Amino acid sequence: MIPRILLATLLVSLTLVVAAAAPALTPDAVLAAAPAGDWQALDPADTLYMDLPAGRVVILLAPGFAPRTIANIKKLVHEKYFDDSALLRSQDNYVVQWSQEKVAEKKAEATLKGYVEFERPVSSSLTRLPDRDTYARETGFDGDFPAGSDGRHEWLLHCYGMVGAGRDNAADSGSGVELYAVTGQSPRQLDRNITLVGRVVQGMELLSVLPRGPGAMGFYAKPEQYTKIRDIRLASELAPKDRLALQYLKTDTSSFAAYVDARRNRRNDWFVRAAGAIDACNIPLPVRSTPK
Amino acid sequence: MIPRILLATLLVSLTLVVAAAAPALTPDAVLAAAPAGDWQALDPADTLYMDLPAGRVVILLAPGFAPRTIANIKKLVHEKYFDDSALLRSQDNYVVQWSQEKVAEKKAEATLKGYVEFERPVSSSLTRLPDRDTYARETGFDGDFPAGSDGRHEWLLHCYGMVGAGRDNAADSGSGVELYAVTGQSPRQLDRNITLVGRVVQGMELLSVLPRGPGAMGFYAKPEQYTKIRDIRLASELAPKDRLALQYLKTDTSSFAAYVDARRNRRNDWFVRAAGAIDACNIPLPVRSTPK
Repeated sequence: MIPRILLATLLVSLTLVVAAAAPALTPDAVLAAAPAGDWQALDPADTLYMDLPAGRVVILLAPGFAPRTIANIKKLVHEKYFDDSALLRSQDNYVVQWSQEKVAEKKAEATLKGYVEFERPVSSSLTRLPDRDTYARETGFDGDFPAGSDGRHEWLLHCYGMVGAGRDNAADSGSGVELYAVTGQSPRQLDRNITLVGRVVQGMELLSVLPRGPGAMGFYAKPEQYTKIRDIRLASELAPKDRLALQYLKTDTSSFAAYVDARRNRRNDWFVRAAGAIDACNIPLPVRSTPK
Repeated sequence: MIPRILLATLLVSLTLVVAAAAPALTPDAVLAAAPAGDWQALDPADTLYMDLPAGRVVILLAPGFAPRTIANIKKLVHEKYFDDSALLRSQDNYVVQWSQEKVAEKKAEATLKGYVEFERPVSSSLTRLPDRDTYARETGFDGDFPAGSDGRHEWLLHCYGMVGAGRDNAADSGSGVELYAVTGQSPRQLDRNITLVGRVVQGMELLSVLPRGPGAMGFYAKPEQYTKIRDIRLASELAPKDRLALQYLKTDTSSFAAYVDARRNRRNDWFVRAAGAIDACNIPLPVRSTPK
């Protein structure tokens, strides 16, 4: 019989040998090797196209987390509420925010009910990370979104590129008429304080480079400083030929797990030391054009 | 005699009462209340002014962490190496990087030795945070910089606005001729892999809004896309009247501790839930103009 301590040592040695023998894939190599079935096409019924003068921002919605707020947003989009709206605020290392500024539209807003969709009961679809997190007991991915949990509740994380519904002091005042996207270090203190509705999956750099507003909280001082939003459309409102063919890597696949590990412990000639851990907000969702 | 368990309960109750009675200061209120002695003027001998067409970026150097690399940088600055240099790279949610592109200057670079200043022995000047961190056993602040430690070594953290010396694959190839600043979610996997030399303390928004380069790693495709750097000077090279009068809040003061706590647990009418924890990279260094 092998004493436990020796067995443990043997197992560790074996693990090291196996690890050394495994191909040292970079994150890009993992993505290139992922089978087609590990990629998921964006659902056009839950994909927004926000068209700016500089190009298109693609936002994937999270109806599993914020169904009522997203129903509001879809209603607003159908009614062309965001046509000729504007980015009103850009605060450095924090968020950009957009809404409609026309008085007539502002009146219409008052009739739209806001909701508190800050968290939900924890779901079996949460794929957990082993890494410790400063803000949440555990973190991981649920579908295509970074999420946190305390074992009972589950919530989306304020990572770079996440999109939420701005609100006033009343917790239920976020109706979807004002939206924001995170452009800086993840402001995780906002988690469970406001409703996140989705994430930018393409065109984030069109938002992150917007000049910072000179006012408090990065508000612009004059309408001339706004960046205009031509319109926001649901992809499903466009003819299929006019939709962008995009896929994301499903987060419950072994490909995604390998991708996370390759980012957790970088294996290329540049790194002298692997981090050994990773923050959920340091794992961008891999998105690509659908291969022909 | 009071059993220990009861004493502990009493102490906890007392703490709660004291906490409830304490004024609920916001981060701004804490800063406004900080005594003058808690603020430290920037040392002109360790302050760089990088002048861009859009304005001035102020960088505070960290000679306690990277003395040799910083000696190189000061030598380069004295020799006007960075005059008419350029921002060559802007990668979304990562870094901007700058250097000299003139061939004559590139030759001069070859003579400059690079150093490995990725970490140092842990110092008694490290003020630790109680919050858990994904990447380091412990984090905190040392002087005016966010730092991590494993109990024996200490290193600067790759937070938003931190500045480092780019390097090639050879660990000692970072001489200071190429510098970068973090413009996105803290890329903490770089910690202990490259030499950080300081942080931007003013003008960060001039770097973060630069158009992202279209090439790999955010490199611009053509020189016409570069943002020119007029020059980089040490504040001490300028006449005192031409220096910016800036101060930062010393991180070993009770004011700084109160500021961190006010950011850890936001106490204003908007928040419905306090985070209860904070990431060192979510604590920007308070910087202000010296009061007259």
